[in-house]
Amino acid sequence: MTSTQVAIVGAGPAGLLLGQLLAKSGITSVIIERQSPDYVLGRIRAGVLEQGTVDALGSIGVDARLHQEGLPHHGFDLLFKGERHRIDLAALTGGKQVMVYGQTEVTKDLMLAREASNLTTIYNASDVAIHDFDGDSPRVTYTLNGQAHELKARFIAGCDGFHGVCRASVPSSAIQHYEKIYPFGWLGVLADVPPVADELIYANTERGFALCSMRSKTRSRYYLQCPLSDTVEQWSDQAFWHELGNRLDPQAAQALVTGPSIEKSIAPLRSFVAEPMRFGSLMLAGDAAHIVPPTGAKGLNLAASDVMYLAQAFERYFNDKDNGGVDGYSAQALSRVWKAERFSWWFTSLMHQFPELGSFNQKVQEAELDYLVNSTAAATSLAENYVGLPL
Amino acid sequence: MTSTQVAIVGAGPAGLLLGQLLAKSGITSVIIERQSPDYVLGRIRAGVLEQGTVDALGSIGVDARLHQEGLPHHGFDLLFKGERHRIDLAALTGGKQVMVYGQTEVTKDLMLAREASNLTTIYNASDVAIHDFDGDSPRVTYTLNGQAHELKARFIAGCDGFHGVCRASVPSSAIQHYEKIYPFGWLGVLADVPPVADELIYANTERGFALCSMRSKTRSRYYLQCPLSDTVEQWSDQAFWHELGNRLDPQAAQALVTGPSIEKSIAPLRSFVAEPMRFGSLMLAGDAAHIVPPTGAKGLNLAASDVMYLAQAFERYFNDKDNGGVDGYSAQALSRVWKAERFSWWFTSLMHQFPELGSFNQKVQEAELDYLVNSTAAATSLAENYVGLPL
Repeated sequence: MTSTQVAIVGAGPAGLLLGQLLAKSGITSVIIERQSPDYVLGRIRAGVLEQGTVDALGSIGVDARLHQEGLPHHGFDLLFKGERHRIDLAALTGGKQVMVYGQTEVTKDLMLAREASNLTTIYNASDVAIHDFDGDSPRVTYTLNGQAHELKARFIAGCDGFHGVCRASVPSSAIQHYEKIYPFGWLGVLADVPPVADELIYANTERGFALCSMRSKTRSRYYLQCPLSDTVEQWSDQAFWHELGNRLDPQAAQALVTGPSIEKSIAPLRSFVAEPMRFGSLMLAGDAAHIVPPTGAKGLNLAASDVMYLAQAFERYFNDKDNGGVDGYSAQALSRVWKAERFSWWFTSLMHQFPELGSFNQKVQEAELDYLVNSTAAATSLAENYVGLPL
Repeated sequence: MTSTQVAIVGAGPAGLLLGQLLAKSGITSVIIERQSPDYVLGRIRAGVLEQGTVDALGSIGVDARLHQEGLPHHGFDLLFKGERHRIDLAALTGGKQVMVYGQTEVTKDLMLAREASNLTTIYNASDVAIHDFDGDSPRVTYTLNGQAHELKARFIAGCDGFHGVCRASVPSSAIQHYEKIYPFGWLGVLADVPPVADELIYANTERGFALCSMRSKTRSRYYLQCPLSDTVEQWSDQAFWHELGNRLDPQAAQALVTGPSIEKSIAPLRSFVAEPMRFGSLMLAGDAAHIVPPTGAKGLNLAASDVMYLAQAFERYFNDKDNGGVDGYSAQALSRVWKAERFSWWFTSLMHQFPELGSFNQKVQEAELDYLVNSTAAATSLAENYVGLPL
């Protein structure tokens, strides 16, 4: 049996960031991951980082490529009724901005940093299970190359995502779930074409929501609101580009550069929170504890703030012999989580078509968009949530 | 047959204010009202005036008693999770405020002004009907003391409320309705007791919404969210005061002065908009065209802004021979109406219990309240809507 101070389940960005933050404080960790590194890197996810997330990566020295290749954005466009309105994030928030840099790249940078630090990550672990987290000596068991292993730790950090084993191991009587399912999905396409605009465009149209996003100056990421019953097979590249053009203003539609998709997928939209986020020696972080719909790109950023709180809590515990951070972690993280859940729900509600909610709601949505771009206070509220509420 | 420039149907505050605004511009009007003056004055309605409404009353010299007896309020309290948080309207909006002064008093002042101006108001008119408003010579017919009468006018102003004859006279193919019904009502009590606090208290509690309002320093108006199936008979004064106390913070509950109710009623909550607000020579204003739930007290203020737009439109038409105001009235009024509809819907959604919407919504509501009192931008957005968006 091996042992460590913190056993981290899941080598996604949450687990990897936590590992590096802990290493910086001299706290040992081992990461156990079900999948291979390539599989982890193959996941296409969000690409907009809050300043707080960028700062966290900077604090562990994992921001060189980010600052080289990332695209700082000082605003984005809201498109509705055929017109684009810029939300000037920097002007509205006293100079704050976001950084466009793919989650895949963040993960890659963190992996390299972990390798360089000679920290242990166990990939391709099967049968991962967690034990005894109601006491002070929790364990993680797993199988590697046909052999059973056990890892002892003082804490387990559940960074293994929505479908992971950690949350699922908590007795249902000890955990409360809050959930909202949206009646549509996002059809996403990744393509090596220059983005249609320098900044993101969030479009509310009668035909449904569209998002023009990007990973770099040569790689675009576009999304279309679609029925949940749609399949990727139904959407040829041509059909996708045609529909996207229909949801943009004439100027953007004209500027749209199309090309073959290098990834195409349909994702459902979900709001989900599990409370609490701590169960004895098990601490959940990121998607393991909560999911936001992707509108506003809060998922990765919430995972980052969770592990920042968690790293501080563990540092107080191990280095200062102070339980306060560990005891307060759940309430501290959930306070920020719920604000981001509210924002993501609100921004999703504002930008998508909900025909089943009736025409009064549709008109209220239009009135809110109209109000939003004409009120500094309302635009500031949007902007301060978009760049990230304070930690 | 008599004739006038503008036939106003309805002698509530909207019709009376319109009449005085028109008189100031030298435009003649006759008001036709189904009820008696006492009946009109007997209606207990809202009591919070936006600055724009106060200014409109000032522009026609009907603000002497308002400034003597009205209570200027620079803020109000939001109560949730047992704690009160002040929304400082003046600080958030650059010095704006609202005026607490009952709709009944506004109506009384406007009646006296109309009498003093020797302008015609026909009360107790039965069988009121409007005709030929698709042309330039609309007519209003009615019966008074058993005799049929006809009033010819260039325009008809439909200020006769939600249940009035004017909107009902429009062919259904020409009008679009938007509506939302809320699954609860407000149980209201009027009592000659000093208000529990100097400012209003809007309370979100697990037991339902409560509002502590007032008409003066000796007359209080309190409301409780209640099931729509409740009846006034079920609610003794004692039961009302007891439940109100349960929905306040301990300090307010202790300070609550109770006494016999002088009015008690249950009102449903409704959002409603009819579009457009103009049909040829018929112009709708106030409750005839739209209803808001009472949270935030926008009803009377919207009626006032409608008739301010309308008076300007008529002035341009009659005095400047310019159709622009009349042609633009509906779009102009509806732009402000929908923003107030959005605000009233939002504030209602934020403050009431909606168990049928599930626990995710409940948690989002709590997060929004928490965010609201911790974000200057969000509080400013609330405040600017509460004091009234610009005309």
